[in-house]
Amino acid sequence: MPKQDRSRATRQRLLEAAVACLAEHGWAGSTVSVVAERAGVSRGAAQHHFPTREDLFTAAVEYVAEERSTALRALFPEGAADRRAVIAALVDLYTGPLFRAALHLWVAASNEDQLRPRVTELEAHVGREAHRIAVDLLGADESVPGVRETVQGLLDMARGLGLANLLTDDTGRRDRVVAQWAVLLDEALA
Amino acid sequence: MPKQDRSRATRQRLLEAAVACLAEHGWAGSTVSVVAERAGVSRGAAQHHFPTREDLFTAAVEYVAEERSTALRALFPEGAADRRAVIAALVDLYTGPLFRAALHLWVAASNEDQLRPRVTELEAHVGREAHRIAVDLLGADESVPGVRETVQGLLDMARGLGLANLLTDDTGRRDRVVAQWAVLLDEALA
Repeated sequence: MPKQDRSRATRQRLLEAAVACLAEHGWAGSTVSVVAERAGVSRGAAQHHFPTREDLFTAAVEYVAEERSTALRALFPEGAADRRAVIAALVDLYTGPLFRAALHLWVAASNEDQLRPRVTELEAHVGREAHRIAVDLLGADESVPGVRETVQGLLDMARGLGLANLLTDDTGRRDRVVAQWAVLLDEALA
Repeated sequence: MPKQDRSRATRQRLLEAAVACLAEHGWAGSTVSVVAERAGVSRGAAQHHFPTREDLFTAAVEYVAEERSTALRALFPEGAADRRAVIAALVDLYTGPLFRAALHLWVAASNEDQLRPRVTELEAHVGREAHRIAVDLLGADESVPGVRETVQGLLDMARGLGLANLLTDDTGRRDRVVAQWAVLLDEALA
């Protein structure tokens, strides 16, 4: 591999390892060293890519969120063919390791002054992108009063469902809630 | 004050201080000593009431959740007079210091084996009680298919709104989302 590609592959391995580490061990258990070891990269190489712990973990959540967004758009290349399927896929964004990692980062940022401004900016960016995708895939017309807030509420519900899945496997209940709200939202957006 | 009342007052001060402490400093910054000092109680007295840190903080979140539930029921003694006002009050349960404290406890429990079973049980209990209050105050008839899930989705949305309020003041956006979802719910439950 050319040197530039090797460097990009290393960076990518570090970012993916960082999200997995945050999701599994939380902020307190997530250091640059632990991530470097998990990614099979030297600590020096990790610090070359990400000078600080804050750099590594905020970049990691951003990178994985972008990957997930791209994957979600690819699932529905034609847009809102089936609004209920889109709603289920949007909720899925909030119940896996990415959401768990982001949650650890948000909560740590609420008590750490060094992390807080970085994570606040990241949350705004990721939130805007999730909203944009939801509007596109649902074929929602935001010029109609209330539609913007209907979509925002769906994403808030998805976040709440992610939280409910933190300590126990909430899949069964979640599937029923999503099925019901998909009906209500389909009517509201029709 | 008789001795029994004094003991109950001390216990109550400790529980309220524990929730405030968790909300402000997170799990890592919340110890029995810090809470005892905040409550103006000796460390020995605190440990007499709550032998372990886990005892203190799980009891605190449970106690404050019960206080909030009682206060919420008292706000609407007649039940669903105005469903939109009930929905706004339910959402308010998830955006103050209690939710913030609970969130820190849930997230800590996801990485700490000692805390996890206690908090899982607490979450189930608090969640059931919130659902029961919501059903009562909204006058929701759960024998109708879908109604149970409609109410559950509202509480999931409220949890997501609480999370969105963690790093920034989300009041303006939240009010608009709640106003719109109140319309959707009012139609769905009518």
